[in-house]
Parts: sequence; C-alpha cells; structure tokens
Amino acid sequence: MSSISGTLFRVSTFGESHGPGVGVILDGCPPGFAINLDELQQELNRRKPGQSHLTTARQEPDSLEILSGVFEGKSLGTPIAMMVRNVDNRSQDYQSFAQIYRPSHADFTYHAKYGHRTPHGGGRASVRETIGRVAAGAIAKQILRNELGVETIAWVESVGTVDSQALKKPPQTRDQVDSNLIRCPNEIAAKKMIALVEEARSNKDSVGGTIGVIVRGVPPGLGDPVFDKLEAELAKASLSIPACKGFESGSGFEGTRLFGSQHNDEFIPAADPHKHGPTAELPAPVLETRTNMSGGIQGGISNGMPILCRLAFKPTATIAQALGSVNEKGESVTLEARGRHDPCVLPRAVPIVEAVFNLVLMDAYLRQRAAVPEWWIRYKRDREG
Amino acid sequence: MSSISGTLFRVSTFGESHGPGVGVILDGCPPGFAINLDELQQELNRRKPGQSHLTTARQEPDSLEILSGVFEGKSLGTPIAMMVRNVDNRSQDYQSFAQIYRPSHADFTYHAKYGHRTPHGGGRASVRETIGRVAAGAIAKQILRNELGVETIAWVESVGTVDSQALKKPPQTRDQVDSNLIRCPNEIAAKKMIALVEEARSNKDSVGGTIGVIVRGVPPGLGDPVFDKLEAELAKASLSIPACKGFESGSGFEGTRLFGSQHNDEFIPAADPHKHGPTAELPAPVLETRTNMSGGIQGGISNGMPILCRLAFKPTATIAQALGSVNEKGESVTLEARGRHDPCVLPRAVPIVEAVFNLVLMDAYLRQRAAVPEWWIRYKRDREG
Amino acid sequence: MSSISGTLFRVSTFGESHGPGVGVILDGCPPGFAINLDELQQELNRRKPGQSHLTTARQEPDSLEILSGVFEGKSLGTPIAMMVRNVDNRSQDYQSFAQIYRPSHADFTYHAKYGHRTPHGGGRASVRETIGRVAAGAIAKQILRNELGVETIAWVESVGTVDSQALKKPPQTRDQVDSNLIRCPNEIAAKKMIALVEEARSNKDSVGGTIGVIVRGVPPGLGDPVFDKLEAELAKASLSIPACKGFESGSGFEGTRLFGSQHNDEFIPAADPHKHGPTAELPAPVLETRTNMSGGIQGGISNGMPILCRLAFKPTATIAQALGSVNEKGESVTLEARGRHDPCVLPRAVPIVEAVFNLVLMDAYLRQRAAVPEWWIRYKRDREG
Amino acid sequence: MSSISGTLFRVSTFGESHGPGVGVILDGCPPGFAINLDELQQELNRRKPGQSHLTTARQEPDSLEILSGVFEGKSLGTPIAMMVRNVDNRSQDYQSFAQIYRPSHADFTYHAKYGHRTPHGGGRASVRETIGRVAAGAIAKQILRNELGVETIAWVESVGTVDSQALKKPPQTRDQVDSNLIRCPNEIAAKKMIALVEEARSNKDSVGGTIGVIVRGVPPGLGDPVFDKLEAELAKASLSIPACKGFESGSGFEGTRLFGSQHNDEFIPAADPHKHGPTAELPAPVLETRTNMSGGIQGGISNGMPILCRLAFKPTATIAQALGSVNEKGESVTLEARGRHDPCVLPRAVPIVEAVFNLVLMDAYLRQRAAVPEWWIRYKRDREG
Repeated sequence: MSSISGTLFRVSTFGESHGPGVGVILDGCPPGFAINLDELQQELNRRKPGQSHLTTARQEPDSLEILSGVFEGKSLGTPIAMMVRNVDNRSQDYQSFAQIYRPSHADFTYHAKYGHRTPHGGGRASVRETIGRVAAGAIAKQILRNELGVETIAWVESVGTVDSQALKKPPQTRDQVDSNLIRCPNEIAAKKMIALVEEARSNKDSVGGTIGVIVRGVPPGLGDPVFDKLEAELAKASLSIPACKGFESGSGFEGTRLFGSQHNDEFIPAADPHKHGPTAELPAPVLETRTNMSGGIQGGISNGMPILCRLAFKPTATIAQALGSVNEKGESVTLEARGRHDPCVLPRAVPIVEAVFNLVLMDAYLRQRAAVPEWWIRYKRDREG
Repeated sequence: MSSISGTLFRVSTFGESHGPGVGVILDGCPPGFAINLDELQQELNRRKPGQSHLTTARQEPDSLEILSGVFEGKSLGTPIAMMVRNVDNRSQDYQSFAQIYRPSHADFTYHAKYGHRTPHGGGRASVRETIGRVAAGAIAKQILRNELGVETIAWVESVGTVDSQALKKPPQTRDQVDSNLIRCPNEIAAKKMIALVEEARSNKDSVGGTIGVIVRGVPPGLGDPVFDKLEAELAKASLSIPACKGFESGSGFEGTRLFGSQHNDEFIPAADPHKHGPTAELPAPVLETRTNMSGGIQGGISNGMPILCRLAFKPTATIAQALGSVNEKGESVTLEARGRHDPCVLPRAVPIVEAVFNLVLMDAYLRQRAAVPEWWIRYKRDREG
Repeated sequence: MSSISGTLFRVSTFGESHGPGVGVILDGCPPGFAINLDELQQELNRRKPGQSHLTTARQEPDSLEILSGVFEGKSLGTPIAMMVRNVDNRSQDYQSFAQIYRPSHADFTYHAKYGHRTPHGGGRASVRETIGRVAAGAIAKQILRNELGVETIAWVESVGTVDSQALKKPPQTRDQVDSNLIRCPNEIAAKKMIALVEEARSNKDSVGGTIGVIVRGVPPGLGDPVFDKLEAELAKASLSIPACKGFESGSGFEGTRLFGSQHNDEFIPAADPHKHGPTAELPAPVLETRTNMSGGIQGGISNGMPILCRLAFKPTATIAQALGSVNEKGESVTLEARGRHDPCVLPRAVPIVEAVFNLVLMDAYLRQRAAVPEWWIRYKRDREG
Repeated sequence: MSSISGTLFRVSTFGESHGPGVGVILDGCPPGFAINLDELQQELNRRKPGQSHLTTARQEPDSLEILSGVFEGKSLGTPIAMMVRNVDNRSQDYQSFAQIYRPSHADFTYHAKYGHRTPHGGGRASVRETIGRVAAGAIAKQILRNELGVETIAWVESVGTVDSQALKKPPQTRDQVDSNLIRCPNEIAAKKMIALVEEARSNKDSVGGTIGVIVRGVPPGLGDPVFDKLEAELAKASLSIPACKGFESGSGFEGTRLFGSQHNDEFIPAADPHKHGPTAELPAPVLETRTNMSGGIQGGISNGMPILCRLAFKPTATIAQALGSVNEKGESVTLEARGRHDPCVLPRAVPIVEAVFNLVLMDAYLRQRAAVPEWWIRYKRDREG
C-alpha cells in the first residue's frame, strides 16, 4: 500500500516530479459537506515553490483541478480526485547526473529497490508528491474545524542552531505564523533564521530545522489503543514527509530525563464544566490536566488537552557544492549539482505538516464515530450550541 | 484496525492485563520455516515482569502455548495463534482507585472514548499486550536472520540524565546488552543507571530513558516510497509501544542543527565488492556511505548501511507517592497508588523494541519480494554463498 | 490477508481441524454492548458435528471459551478472542492417505501452494475453521437485531434434485427452519430431502444442495458503491464457505431470462409511511417496491426491502467409495476413504451462512454510521420508537 | 474502502458519469514491465459506448491519458494514474426525472445512503466507472500473459432465453468472441441473440443474459484459504460490476443436483509431465483432473486446470417505456425515460469481466510470490523454457 493511506478517510496519491502531473484520490469523504475550494488553493499556495528567495526558484502555479466527487460545491461521498499539472520541469538540469547517485537522495535506494533509475528529478521522492496530501488535508481541516472546532497550527520552531522556543508558548493563529517568510511566530528568532538561510544560500549550502505543531480543540477519545495510537499515526505521517527524520509528542526526548513525580499530569476539574459535559450518551466528566507533558495524548488516545508535537527535518540534500559520489558502475566520481532546490525546506514544510496531521485526525474522527456514535452526538452538539 | 497491524506479515493481538490471558494471531508467516520455539520463550522471558529488583514484582511465568499454524516445528503458512495465560493478576489492588483516573494513565481517555471504564489493571493499555508482539517478532527475527542475515539489537541508551552514548559505538552482540540488569552495553553507564533506578525506587518514584537500536545486514531496497517509508513504519511501531513518546532515525533531531555540507552521506564503493554484487537480475552496484547520517534509510528505503534509531520512553506513570487527581464525578481527590509497577520500564522495553522492529522489517521484506522477486534471488543467493 | 476479513468489524480466525483448537479474534466490536453468551454457544451447537445421523459422527462439544474483550457480560470495545479446543481428532484415520491427494479436496492445491502437505484432516480447509466465524457472527447478529431490527434467516432450499421452492415464500422464523433435521421450512420437501441424504449415506455417497437466505429489517443505505457493493461482499463471504460454488442475489440467474419491462421493481409509497420517515437529518422518503427482483439491493446498496440470496453447495467430496487418484510421486493409486464425514453439509451450513451474512452486514452498518451518523440517528430512533 | 480494491495490486477508481472525467490509480504494479499502451486503448474500445446499434448511442472517444507511473513505456513501480475525459454527457436528458427515483436504478439507494441525490446520469453507479478497471485490468492481463502464460477469455453465454452452451466448449481465442457484435463464439446462437436484442430495442425494452469466462494457464497455488479464496475474490469482483446479480464457479448451481460420486474430479498424471514438473524448490507433482467440476479451483486455490465461471446480468433497468415510480416527496408519478442506454449490456460487459478477473488473478499472483518465491521461480522458469 505504498501510495495509499488511511482506514476510512483514505488518500491515494500519484505523480512524479517531472511527469505530466501529480494528484490524489480522496476516498471516504463524508457526503454533503460544503467545501471551500478557495481554501484548498490557498494551502497549495503556501506549499508551492518560488514563494520567496528562501525557497527554490522553480516556478509552478500549482493550479488545482477537481475531477470528481464534488457537485455544486458539496462533497458527494464519492472519491474526490484532484490534480495539478507540472509546468516548469527542466529535466535537462538532471541529465548531467543521470548515471550518478546524488548523496543523501533516494537515487541509489530506488535503483536498488526497483532495478531501474527513476526519471529525472526525484520521481516520487520529490516534495511535489505532497501536493495531493495538502489538497486532501485542506478538506479534512475544514470538516474538523466545522464539526469539532479542531485547529492544527504548525510553524518553524528552529532553523539550524536558531531555536525559537515557540513550543513553550505556541502561536494562537496561522496569521502569526505567516507573518514572516520563514513562518516562525517569534519575530526575533525569525529574523535570525532568515539570515541563516541567506547565509547558507550564499555559501551554496543548505540548513535543517524543526517544526512545532499544536492541535487545539480535539475532544477526548480520538485514537485507538495498541497499533493505531494517535501519536503512532502522527509519527508515521510525519516521518512520511520527505526529509523528516524525527518525531516527538508532548515532553518527548526531554521528558525522558525526568522522574515520574515531575512528569505526571495531574487531573483537575475543567475550567469550563459545561464544555463537553457528561451526558447520558457518554458519561465521562470534563477534565483538564495541570501540566501537559502528555501532549494531549494518553494511552494513544486524545485527552482533550492541546496536542503538541515536534518534527525534525534534515538539511536539504542538494547543494550547489561539488560532492564526491559513485556512478552506476560503482566508480568514484565528482558531482556538480544543478537543478533548483530549497536552501531550507522548513517554510514549505509547515502546510505539509498541517495537512498530514489533519488527515490523521480526520481518519481517527471517522473511526471513532463508527465505534461510538454517541460520542459524535455529544461533541457535535456541544460544538453547535 | 485497532489491534491488527501489517500488510502481509500481520499480527492481531488480544487480551487484557487482568483477563484470562493475552496473545496473538500471526497471519502471513511463509510456509515451511523451521521455527526455534525455545527462542520464542526466551524472548518472552526477557520481557516478563519479575526479572530483577529493577522491575515490577508481579510474577508471571508467561508460558507460551501455540494453538495453530505450526506442525512438527515448521510453519504451515496458516495463522499461528499463540497465547499466554494471566496468573498473578491481583485485581483487588486496583479497586481502591476504580472510580479515580490515575494521572498520565489511559483510565480517563478509555472512559472518554468507550463510555465505560476498562477492567482493573489497565486493560489493553497494559504492557502485557506486548506479549503477542514479542512472540510474533521472535518468529520474524528468525526468518530475517536466516534468509537475509538481518540482526536487530536494542539496548538502554540512557536512563534519566545518565547517557551511555552507546549509539556512537553500538554493541556487536545481544550478550553485551544482556550482561547487566539494565541492559546497557556500556558497563560504566550501566552501573550509574542501576543506581539511579534504585534511588527512584526507594523514593517511591520512577524514571524514564531512551532506547538505542541498530539493525545490521538489511539489504538495500526495503521500505516503500511515500506513506510506508521504512522509517515511517518504524516510527509508528515505536510510538505504539506503551510509554514511548519519541522516535528519531539517523542524525535525528541533532542533525537538524547541521548544514547540508556537513550532513550529506557521501557514497563510496563497497569495501567488499562481491557482497550483494550487481547482477543481471538487479543491476544496482554495491555501495557504502562514508558517514551514516541517514541511519541506513534514504527516501524511505534501506540503503544497505546499518539502520540506527533512538526511542524516548517517559517515566512510568504509576508511582507510590500520593497524587492529586479527579474521580468519575469530576471531583478532586487524592490517589494512593498500590499495584506493582516498574520503577523503570527500559530494561523490559528492549525486547519489545526489537520485536516491533523485526515485525516491520519482515513485512517490508515480504512486500519487496512480491514486487521484485529478482531482488529476493539476488540477496538470498548472496546470503547462501 | 488470508485469515482476516472486514474493514471495521474484523474477524481473524485461526486453527487446523486436527491441531489444538480453533478460534477467532473479533476486532472492532463497539463497546458497551450486552452480549448474550448463551446465544453464541447455541449457534455453535447448530453448527457442530454429530447433531444427527445426517451429519458426520465426529463428536465435538465445541465449548466456547472467551479469552478477552468481554467484562461482566459487556463488550469492552477491545478485541474479543474466542476459542474452542479440538477433542475428537482421530488423526490416524488420515494416515492411510497421507501421501495421496483426495479428489476434489484441497490436499493437492495446498501442496502446490505451500510446498508441503497440511497436517492430517484438512487443516484450514476443514469446516471446523468456521467455528470462529459462527461465534463472531452471533455477536454481529445480536447487535444488528437490537439496534436496527435486522434478522437473517437461512434454510436448506434444495438437496440434490429435491427443491423446496421456499425462496418464493421464505420462512418467518428460525424455529420453522429448525423444526426438522435437514433445516428446510417446507415439511414435505424436508422429508424427501432426509430420505435422499439417507439414501446417499447408505450408498456410501454424498449429496449437494442450495441454501436460501432472507434478511429482513435492513434499512436503506447499507453497502458501498463500486467494489464493496453489498451483494459483492455477500458473494465473497458466501464463496468463502467451504463447498460453496455459487451465489445469486434477487432474481439471479433466472432473472437474466427476462425483459427489462418484466424485471424492473416499480417504486410505491410505503405501507407504513411513518416507518423510517423522512427527517431533517436524512430526507429520503419511505418507499417500497412492488416486486423484489433486486433482492433488496440496488446499485450495491440496500433499499429497505428484504435481501434475498441463494447459495450453491457441491456434494461433500469425501465419500466411502474407492476412488482413483494420484500420490505425491505423481503415480496413479486407489484411495479408500476413512475419516468421518457428512453425507450432506447443508444442515450444518445454515448457521454458517447466517453468520457470514451477519458479519458482512455488521461491517457495512459500522461503515455507514461512520460516513453518515445522521443515518444512524434516524434508523436507531425509529427502532426505539 | 468503497473505491479501492486489492491487497498488493490495488486499484482506486474515481469519477462520475457526468462530471469532468473518470479514471484510476493503479498502485503496486511491479517495476520494469514494458506495457503495451495500445492494448490498453483497445480494451477501452471494446468497452466503450456507441460500438454498434446493440449498445447505447452515447458517443465517447474514451481516449486514455496516462498521468504517472510509466516512463519510456515501462512501469516505474510507482502509481500509474490514468484518466478519460467525459465528452458526450447530455445532463439535460436527466433533468426531467431529477426528482424521481428511476426503478431498479441506484437513485433511491444513493439518496437514502448519502442524504442527497447524485448528479445527473447515475454518478458512480454508471458503467462509466469501469473504465478505470478496464485500463488497469489490461495491464494485469499483459503481466499475467507474459510471466505465467495466463489468458482470460469472456464471452456472452446467453441473452434472454437464447443459450449458446458455449461453456461446454469454451472459445480458444478472443477473435472467436469478437467475430460478431454480440460477442458470442457460437455463431448460430449469436444471430438469435442479436435478433432478440433488436426486438427488445424496437419494443423500447431491454434484455439480460449471462457471461461465460475461462482462464487458461493459471498455475496451481493461486488464491488463499478461508476468506480470500480465489473464487470468493472472483465472486466479489463479478458482483461489483453494475447489473451483475449472480456468480458460479465450476459446476455451480447445476452441480448441487449431483451425488458426490458423480461430482468428484479424479486426479490423473499430467499429459505433459515436464510442464511445471516437481522441483527442489516446490515438490508437488504435475497433475490433471479427469473432469473439471471444480472449475480449476479446490479449497479456494487454483489446481492448474482451466478456471470456469458464469455470471448473471439482469436486463438494463432503463427502458423507453413509461414506468410508475415515486418522487422525492414520496408521491406516485409516471416516469418517461430519456437518456441513451443499452438495450443489452452483455457485449460491453465482456471486456469488463475479463478486466476484473485479471485484477483478481494479478493480486493473487503477487501475494503468492511474496509468500512462496520458490513458487515464482518454478513457474516463471517453466514459462521461459
């Protein structure tokens, strides 16, 4: 199931970076939902190349065409197919290293796996593959927001050694994130990050960083015990993004240094006892926790507190410096990269991370309302009144 | 699919910590493989409670019964059902807090999700659920070792603030890991770790830590692009283990601080060119990388270098100190924990981590030989000489 | 996924006919449902061997043990593992033909598939495998009955050339079916059927037949377009029963002989307009069809009329006559069957067919309430008054 | 998973009959296979409307565009997305009955399921949805033919009461089938069938029929025990085709009238003992059966004999006669159909049936070579000489 993901809200993506186009089929979108199609294009615009001098110069309009599943602005309940044509794919840039394995790229592993080289430009390993996920995730986002009040916000937490510490005081709005080119809500850190990316770029180098994520408004009860724990699904979705090499939830790695007495999240009655109050349908009371070391997930299931995660992105592999490598015959060679690449993928990763989080949460939401429809009545009613 | 995992090598686990027993059905085990059943029990013994004073005092023999799928020591190709009866389940220990949500446990989230409390003792959130995975993982381990030469070794990398730095020089054998009670291959660090756990225990406290993992012998080509990247599957499997809150692969979070020029793994011809040599079946040459920032995985696909990962485990939630909490009516209460729990889960997590890694790798192996059976011929032949 | 079935209500079965036992894990059962455990055993008793002289003489108590997922009579929402030990497995009966492929059995195909012979007695091809499905199906049956008013009744429609024509006037109750040993609601036909089975038995022969099925009370809307049409799922489930070789829905093969003007099911307003009336939640009106050629399913989705199907079962392959065959070396040999087998599988197939139908309907029900929870509110409210 | 099918060779289809277009993503196609793209278009041409006066007058070029997964004529191993634009969709034809449920169509069931009407023209219930399956099936067909020598041939077995009895002597080539407009290899029956369709058409009526299928060259070992028996998968795939209401395998319903002594397929040594001979890899001998009541499948697994099946198709629901029905308010109305429809779907169903059979067989083939790659070596070697 290499290119299909999800149990009930399923995405199946297609397309190579230098082929005719890329896209997605979203299967399992509930019927009758009024989709804001402009918002889909906005999310693609946040993801697309060429937004600023911090990202690759490749120019792609990334105009979304909807092929099925939507009629008069509403979802039909049938598969929603969406496509973007590739426009600015200069394959000739890749011919000089067609026989060479680019370091820390997927050239060699694809060859070893499939027995042939992918076509020019990275094929399925390209970040262009994420277009389908961003489009489908933008639909998930709208349903989650309208039906449950869920909102996912991601931002650039660090670039190289510049750490914004924003996770300790997460942004309240997406506007705070989008207020600067690097998408970091801490303005002082943002300036340092931009300077660092510019430095890397002028040095023909690249730089990595981390993304912070907060999801507010998730009602208790999403996620399944054992294999499909909510944080396990989020971890898989995160690591499925190109260049992501790490994931942590709540206190994460730092929390391993603590004693249990420092780490436990004490339960307290909710500030607003009427919010999601106990009902005949579902009798659990309304609680909060004094701290949030758990990052909103306990035993793999959301507890109603904000979900907090951090993702690690390695520096872009392609740099404009000469590199040693090996060709397909196994001989040592020197590689001069061309192509157009991002000195720092982090700003464009922000909407991608939000999208994959929303896809995971939407799938968990549908699974939960299948198992316990009383749960749906409780939380949707609360939302509506 | 809350209790089923895998595409071709599938495990379906069952059982609550205080019910009749726990177990697993392993579906998709290839036929005709001679399983060393003693090794299955050995892995369960490494996982079981009561191994030392560092772990819980609960006494469980964890004797494995095989109910199907094995005949005269060989796999039939049919589902292998395996079961362990629960013996020492003192449910009365849990009655005092039957109406209270234990902090940082799954009590509240299960109630909110399912509309009722799980039975005494943690139900499916208990680490006893992992018995089925450890048994199934021990079969995966044997097949991977015999057919491809793959070996997964996990160990305790850190406990609290005591960091062994063993990932920089990973252990060569499982004996090195099992040479002490804490399962850390660095003897000096191991002593400090044991002292720290003993201190936590005498303080009625608990402590967290990290697990390091190395997988040697994985041929290039395992893992799928996009959603089922090998590190995405490993991340999901890791975060599905109780108490795991973080995962990183290769350079992970630390690597985000580097420039691309520092981070790229340069390809070099292999030291042993005959190993996995290019063949008519599969023409990719034999390579190595000078560094291994990628942790053996590029573009989500194994590259033949050792796979290196690190997992974060939070401190055990149950501690013997009095804690503030809330009961099912939403009232503030004080909780005095009883039950018998691990002051540090790390030593028992080692065989669990190995098991879930082997399950992921085995599934990826079967998927790859379905897609490219020439790959199987190349690497199995190489293995056999 | 050879031994796992279902999307949300999933069964994973295990066990060989002559191994330690057989059973099932039911994953995805909604929480909080009060299961009548006696009814589970009753369904197993309807399926078990040795019920009468019409069936095999193998004596098996088929006593069900529940290993997990049920607490104080209620489902926990966690996997429900259930097991039956094999008792009367005389493997020695099978040794005489251990090297010979029994005609029309699965001996040869298993050998060709797996490269080895399954153990004595048919292994997974044995009808004993269905025990797990019957147990899980009995849970599905209770939930469907209590929440939607769905009732599935199967019966023996024909044995050999004796055709009861009961499908034209289906039985109203299961008691009508169970009123005789052959489980045919038409008493006159039943007597002829019994005589035919006795004749076959005394001739050391066996006989086939068909099963009729009606499902009453299914609300409109179950089943998915395209691949997972309701009748496609029912067909698959039917053909997955040992010895089943055919399936038809509604007018089936006979309907292919008609013109469209004869075959169309004209819509008419419902006799009881308040039943499932149009609501704000779900505005479709209440309809019936004048005829029911569609068998209650149109476009793969239930339309509220009774579902009507017919299944073909071939005569039991094992007969006590000498048969020509071939051994594992490819040499011609004569086979003298021993073992104890059913001269007619039909009476025991009745509860199996009901079980697999209920499993399919239950899965479709959960999928529909995930997609359109308003649907659940409408039909559950209607059910409750 | 309403619009996704398969375990390893997976198709995900999209598109409504009157939307922008229809298509498919084929996920899991093995890499490096040289696809004959002309053959894909040829299969679409066999399926498309407007081929003759026996089928609908809708004119659609059904020109296939390949969006991904193929490079220089070879499969990449990545998802193959394929699309056909809708051209001749006269939605206005459907406006007259936009508020009326057409009898025996899916209008009412879609409304009841989704809470809204699908857009004009049948939406996903339209036979246009099968375009994606035919395109993907044509790839499966080529791989099965080239690697195993498998060939699936379907034909029109009967139309109304005109029965060709061709299943008793199945056609040897697809040319025999395509030699007349109705696609029946028995020329005498074909003429009668054509006359019957013409009669139905001039009477503003429609007519049903059956499709016969033979699959030659399937090696023993395809199909899984229990749920995913080969005939269970074929039954599901068959019943997933619009208008299909029945499936039988081998002796099917007729075989239920026989005694076991008449029905058993006696094994005999193979005519050509070198074909698929026993090998070190896989020791089962080469056998045939004297009769083929089993239709090439025993215990759910292919036995090497030809697979024989028969499918029932109801008469087209849309006819040009006035029909009684009910509108969305639940009122009785009279419906005058317009639209352009097939008086007989059978000729166009032939390539669809072949496609879904090839999809099932291809998936079973990949699953089998994952489980037992030695099997692949044996049968591919045999194929190659």
